[in-house]
Amino acid sequence: MSAFRDDGAAALEWAAAYLERVRELPVLSQVEPGAIRAALPERAPDAPEPFEAVLRDLDEVLLPGLTHWQSPRYFAYFATTGSEPGILAELLAATLNQVGILWRTSPALQELEEVTLGWLAELLGLPEGLHGHIEDTASTGLVTALAAARAAAPGKRVVVCSEHTHSSTAKAARLLELELRAVPGDDDFSMRLDGIDLTDACAVVATIGTTSSAAIDPVPALADRCAVAGAWLHVDAAYAGSAAVCPELRPLFAGWERADSIGVNPHKWLFTPMDCSAFWSCRPDDLRNAFSLVPEYLRASEDVVSLSEYSVPLGRRFRALKLWAVLRCYGREGLQETIREHLRLAALFEGWVREEPGWEVCAPRHFSLVCFRMDGSDEQNEALLERVNATGEAFLSHARLGGRFVLRLAIGNARTAEDDVRVAWDVLRREARA
Amino acid sequence: MSAFRDDGAAALEWAAAYLERVRELPVLSQVEPGAIRAALPERAPDAPEPFEAVLRDLDEVLLPGLTHWQSPRYFAYFATTGSEPGILAELLAATLNQVGILWRTSPALQELEEVTLGWLAELLGLPEGLHGHIEDTASTGLVTALAAARAAAPGKRVVVCSEHTHSSTAKAARLLELELRAVPGDDDFSMRLDGIDLTDACAVVATIGTTSSAAIDPVPALADRCAVAGAWLHVDAAYAGSAAVCPELRPLFAGWERADSIGVNPHKWLFTPMDCSAFWSCRPDDLRNAFSLVPEYLRASEDVVSLSEYSVPLGRRFRALKLWAVLRCYGREGLQETIREHLRLAALFEGWVREEPGWEVCAPRHFSLVCFRMDGSDEQNEALLERVNATGEAFLSHARLGGRFVLRLAIGNARTAEDDVRVAWDVLRREARA
Repeated sequence: MSAFRDDGAAALEWAAAYLERVRELPVLSQVEPGAIRAALPERAPDAPEPFEAVLRDLDEVLLPGLTHWQSPRYFAYFATTGSEPGILAELLAATLNQVGILWRTSPALQELEEVTLGWLAELLGLPEGLHGHIEDTASTGLVTALAAARAAAPGKRVVVCSEHTHSSTAKAARLLELELRAVPGDDDFSMRLDGIDLTDACAVVATIGTTSSAAIDPVPALADRCAVAGAWLHVDAAYAGSAAVCPELRPLFAGWERADSIGVNPHKWLFTPMDCSAFWSCRPDDLRNAFSLVPEYLRASEDVVSLSEYSVPLGRRFRALKLWAVLRCYGREGLQETIREHLRLAALFEGWVREEPGWEVCAPRHFSLVCFRMDGSDEQNEALLERVNATGEAFLSHARLGGRFVLRLAIGNARTAEDDVRVAWDVLRREARA
Repeated sequence: MSAFRDDGAAALEWAAAYLERVRELPVLSQVEPGAIRAALPERAPDAPEPFEAVLRDLDEVLLPGLTHWQSPRYFAYFATTGSEPGILAELLAATLNQVGILWRTSPALQELEEVTLGWLAELLGLPEGLHGHIEDTASTGLVTALAAARAAAPGKRVVVCSEHTHSSTAKAARLLELELRAVPGDDDFSMRLDGIDLTDACAVVATIGTTSSAAIDPVPALADRCAVAGAWLHVDAAYAGSAAVCPELRPLFAGWERADSIGVNPHKWLFTPMDCSAFWSCRPDDLRNAFSLVPEYLRASEDVVSLSEYSVPLGRRFRALKLWAVLRCYGREGLQETIREHLRLAALFEGWVREEPGWEVCAPRHFSLVCFRMDGSDEQNEALLERVNATGEAFLSHARLGGRFVLRLAIGNARTAEDDVRVAWDVLRREARA
């Protein structure tokens, strides 16, 4: 174990130093396609190499090919945080190397997953008693939800969503051979209710916090309609769901307590390292009906349902450990404080854009995402985005809203300070003048 | 960062001490269902807690609920190893917190995944030029393979496998609404060829190293038939595939180079922490045809296909880092040496069983799995297994072969020494006499 202790100390020091210097690194990787591949040997070595060679090549070969999601100046897609307790919990999870295929292969893994999902549901104001488990990503969660919906409504093969629904719904529908019916959004990019027909629908996917603009679909009205039609309501709150830890934001989540299933990604806005996607459902029997291969009479002697019976993978790793560490080391108050700070920073940035001549805000801001653009053509805005990202000083992404190319600044990294947001704004204005 | 350095040092010391003492811990958790849940608070804390509280509760609350997959006396299902370089690479991956949704969000993640899968293919003697990516588990890999097979053969909805094929094939077929046709195994538990009809089959799943007995299906003959029928051949070598790193074992893998897709789990027998399931295919266009939502004309400017276009999840974590670390720190020679030692130990154990009156070996041994039983009824063997596992001194599992209950001893932990195997044998004989 002395090698492990020494190598571990070196890896830990690398990690600490990385987190200290990540603000100074170019946020978006500036390498050309194939550059990292070309810098690596064509074959694995024959003889063992020391771990320090891995650390060396991490610096010398891989580092230029990393886009720094941990940078406080990462504002693209949805900004995330691998927080310190989450990182260290991953070290522990890998050390324990639990493989949760059946309850008995790791009672602690299974029960901690259930307990932390219960904790998180309570933190977010969700109803008591929901079944909860962790998926790798919201994409897989969509497969889980729609497979259960399909099995629960034989003969109905339509999934209704909005044009702004994340592409993972389309991907899941294709996998499950369901017909996707995307209805238009209104002027605020929220799903329009007129013309929705659920007669042949097995499921509706509503989003709280869409990817393009963090828009909010009319969940209460959709819940009403699903109840009448017998359709499964899945609420995708992958990004925004974490914000429900703040009671003052709960009105934005009205109706989600009536969903058949809900997805929230702690690896997005709850400071948990990738991957950790929370999935809840009030219809666990329907999940098992879709996924379980264990007939009741073959249950193991301990008579415990294994989490593998609720979704695709058989084996699961000990993801709950990092969520547990994050929820404890932040606490409810720490989670609220960090999310409120992100909302403050987003509002601040939104104000700067509104006040600046030649710039406009392009969508209502509900959470920590600001959609905006400068006066000019789509091409000019696209070119601006490329120039900003090429500086490496900040990284933003884009969306199309109402047919227009808009810039997106998403705040979600726990290390982002007001100065980082100001840097992004300075770079944007500088490059816009260029 | 000083807290991170201090907490990290404590976590690292916990990890090192755990690996030192894991041999002494009861292998199979002895807790009752619900015990771990009951020992945890009902809610997350309001105020932040120090990371040391997490470490304390890991010891005091969770440890009894862990089944110790890292124990050298873990012989159940398939034994695994979270090796030291793999563990430390997971620390680094969580620190970097890459989210590979598109190439540009982490060129290093994507290109290292492609390169390490190329390295691994070469180590295992697979053809050059295969597309390779990492899935979380072989179950998801089956979904990937069968979805591509279904899309490539419109109208054909049958998947042919053997009665000994892993249940993940049935699970994937159900998800994809394909009809599963399981053909009988022969006396050696290998798929029988007589009576196989591929007229309406989109896919055949052949296994090299079945879960129950590590049997080997007749892959060359199945490849011939699939070629004629136009069916997709998936070779599931989740467990045994790693053994192909030893050239002398390659004859057991005859024909897999002709598969349309292949799955091998480095998190099973290649010393990589959960989760890391390698997936290769010579038909990447068919994978993209099943999964990609990006029309060609919407490719990003860098014109790079993202790995998310080949399977279900959009986001992927930096799993390649641990595989890279393991392949480098073991090297080809280290991998071969460890696997050969496992084969030697399995042969040794098999010999002990053969020589012992009142015991029998129940299946041909190809790899590191021995199937055996004592004279007596199924019930007596099942009771024996329960007694052995209740001692905590070793953990074995079972299978049903030819209608009989058999015990399985699987060797695959890198820390397993001859003494550990002898302990298992001593406990078995002692409990058999009891």
